[in-house]
This record gives sequence, structure tokens and C-alpha cells, in this order.
Amino acid sequence: MTSNPTACLLIIGNEVLSGRTRDANLQFLATRLGELGIPMREARVIPDVPEIIIATVNECRARFTHVFTTGGIGPTHDDITSECIARAFGVPWEVHEESRALMAADYARRDPPVEFNAARLRMATLPRGAVPIRCAETNAPGFSMENVHVMAGVPRIMRSMFETLAPGLERGRPVVSHTVHADYVYEGQIAEGLTAIQSRFPELDLGSYPYYRGKGGGVALVAKGTEAAEVEAAAEAMFALLAQYGQAQQGEPAPEG
Amino acid sequence: MTSNPTACLLIIGNEVLSGRTRDANLQFLATRLGELGIPMREARVIPDVPEIIIATVNECRARFTHVFTTGGIGPTHDDITSECIARAFGVPWEVHEESRALMAADYARRDPPVEFNAARLRMATLPRGAVPIRCAETNAPGFSMENVHVMAGVPRIMRSMFETLAPGLERGRPVVSHTVHADYVYEGQIAEGLTAIQSRFPELDLGSYPYYRGKGGGVALVAKGTEAAEVEAAAEAMFALLAQYGQAQQGEPAPEG
Repeated sequence: MTSNPTACLLIIGNEVLSGRTRDANLQFLATRLGELGIPMREARVIPDVPEIIIATVNECRARFTHVFTTGGIGPTHDDITSECIARAFGVPWEVHEESRALMAADYARRDPPVEFNAARLRMATLPRGAVPIRCAETNAPGFSMENVHVMAGVPRIMRSMFETLAPGLERGRPVVSHTVHADYVYEGQIAEGLTAIQSRFPELDLGSYPYYRGKGGGVALVAKGTEAAEVEAAAEAMFALLAQYGQAQQGEPAPEG
Repeated sequence: MTSNPTACLLIIGNEVLSGRTRDANLQFLATRLGELGIPMREARVIPDVPEIIIATVNECRARFTHVFTTGGIGPTHDDITSECIARAFGVPWEVHEESRALMAADYARRDPPVEFNAARLRMATLPRGAVPIRCAETNAPGFSMENVHVMAGVPRIMRSMFETLAPGLERGRPVVSHTVHADYVYEGQIAEGLTAIQSRFPELDLGSYPYYRGKGGGVALVAKGTEAAEVEAAAEAMFALLAQYGQAQQGEPAPEG
């Protein structure tokens, strides 16, 4: 997977760090990016503090092929992502005329019409050079600034913006995975055997995940990588390993019920 | 809140970055740490890669009062957190005799007895100088190494380890919050008024969060801080602001149903 492009997610918002809001974007983006061959290599949750946003964006856009941000692009005083991106890139933060016109037309069409006030105009204010990301869920754009893709924090809107963006992203080889599991088999039993399988497939990412169901449970073993044949061969070996200790099964275990 | 101790969470695990597993620890820890007056200032999800774990731990333990880690302390080859913490601190990673003895006694008591093999012994292997964190959910310890607190990734075990740890943590003033909301009121309407309230209470963290319910929705406004009287005064002002545009209500909106 080393030659694939990489992704980093920045979740911007005090509400996630305070526990008020449970993030719902990381898992969606991790999954979709894996499918596109742009594996997520890191995610950070950072507060609504300009210096931290700016420093983190600049660190991460240098380290990863793509940086995705969620949150902080609404109309209120705590929505400072867009302005911070402009500062990170050292460009003016200015009204984006095409976005302003589209928003004005949309607000005017509403019944009753919505006032396009200064707060709402902030959502049409972008770093100079930004490419807007439009979607059907809102008239306010996200935007890309070079390899930094700025999206809303509301999951429904974020997903829609991401799907607007996805066709234009530089892709890698999709990450494929194969999971096997066995009830009443425990990590401490299969650890040594799994290490041996990992050394046979150094390019793959093999993971071991215990699961619990009431007083029972077991272990799920996952092989991931971009070489489908290797993933299948490793999954076969993991299945045989589990079968030494219990009843090996294909796929993820059923959720606790 | 500036004089409070601070916390950073490191979620260690490829399974979160691949989308296989949805993290369930961030929100719990963010909430509990806020209650203890140790606000979480940053969280990172990082992969099972030694160099990244070591560099991130060393960066964050210098920046925050406390660093909490979740994940990677089981018996399999991908459980490398403990060894990486030893490397981050430049100390040997060695069998912790008391932990070994406790685990051996526990495995021997099982019916049938469980073999205390090399993989399980890894879970009794700690950085020299670590203080174990024991809990009722497992015989394998977490541990604290100075200001770095290493916990399991399984939420049930993590919570139990955290509650073992909590009484000994240096605390600050608890963060209190007050939420008000109004249906059919939108951020674009109240943004300017909220900015004015924020400038009256510069020490508080005021947040604005739209919510959606089918075709409706509204906005929730949250005041947070360590000065309860200020939080109440700000909440009163936010309530009055919402009342200008709709029916202001106390507390969080009911979840979408």
C-alpha cells in the first residue's frame, strides 16, 4: 500500500472534544477513502482555536496527499475554519462572487425570502484560489484549496460534499479486506500463529480484534491490502489457524444482540 | 479555563483508520475529563506504526498535562503500544513481576486452566517504572508512565481502567455547561447576536449547533466554562436571543426520532 496516496482527516470543533457531539464522519470517510485507494493514515480532533487550526493544517498538508476537514464552516462566530485555511495558505479571505450570487439567488427564491445578512455572507467568503464544493444539501459551499478539502461537519452535508469531490480525487489501488472469526477462540491462543502469518505477508495489514457477547465472545482476524490474491491467501491461513482452536467462520461476527 | 490541566487522547489502531471499528472511547473520555476539570484539548487517531506512535507520544506528553492512549495492549503482533511507550521514554520493556504473578494466578484458577504462554506474557511486559492500572474486567493491566496513561481499546475495559485512574489524577475546576435551543430558528439569524454575547463573556466557550429533524430543525446554543455564574448569565442572554426569533427552550433538543 506504500505507493497509494494518503489521507488525513481534521475534525474541527470544540463540541467533539467536550463530548457534546459524537463524531459521525470519521468512519464514513475512512471507509470511502479506503475504497478509493486513498487510505486514511491519521485523524485529529482539534479545537476552534485559530493558531491550532493553522499549524495543524500546515503540518498535515505537507505530510499527506490529501487533507480533509470537517466542521466550522457555518455562519456563527465559532465557524472559523475557512478563515484559518486562508491564513494557513497566506492568501486573502474574500467574498467568492460566484458563490455569493448562487446563495443570493437561493435565498431570494425562498418563501418567505431569507435575508442574506453578514453572517450568511461569511459562508460565501473563501480563501483566494479556492475551488468551491457544491452539493444538493445546502447553498453554502465547501471548498478545496490545493490538497486541503474543507467540508461541513453535519454528516448528511459532509457526505454529499464528499461525493461531489470524490470523482476528482487522485486515487490509488483500492484496499480490499477479508475477515474471518471464531466464537470461543481468544487472542492469547492464536497470537503466535498470527505473527507467523504476518511474517509471510509483510505487505498486508493483519489485525486481531476480540469481540464480546454477554459472557462469551471470540476473535475476528482481518487481512487488508491492495493485492487481492495475497489478502485471500492470508485469510485462508487465518481461517486454518482459527480452525485449530474452534469453529472458524467467514466474515465479521454478528453484532452483539 | 486556561489554568486547568489539559488532556490529549491518542486512539491507536489501524481498525479505526480503516473504518472497520467506530471509536467509542473519545466521547466517554471527553465527557468524564470535562467533569474532572481536565478538558480534552486534542485527540488523534494513529496507526499501529512504531515510529508514529513514539513520535506522537513524545510530542503530546510535552504539550499536555495528561495523555491517555487507547488500544494496542493485547497479546497479538499488532499490539505494540506498550513497547512503543518504553521506546518513547527510553527505558527497557520488561516483565513486570507483580503483574506476571497476578496473571499467572488468575489463569491457573480458570477451569480449565488457561496456558500462560508467551503471547499472554507480553501483556505483563511493561516499560520500566510504569505503574499498573488494574481493573475488574481483565487480568492484563493498563499502566501510567509519568503523565501518559495507557488503556485498553475495548470500551468496557477502558472505562473500568479510567475509573481506577481517575481518583489519582490532578484535577482542575469542572467544566459546566448550559444549553438552550429553539426549533425553526437558524444559525444565520442569530449569528450576529451570538457574537455579541461571546464578546461579553470572553472566558466562556459559546457554541452554536444546528440540528435537523426531517424537514425541520433548529439551533442549539451551548455555553461552557468553569465559572458557573458566567455560564448561567450567558445562557440567559442566549435564551433571550433565541426568543427574538422563535420559542426558546432550555436544554438540548430531543434527538431526531
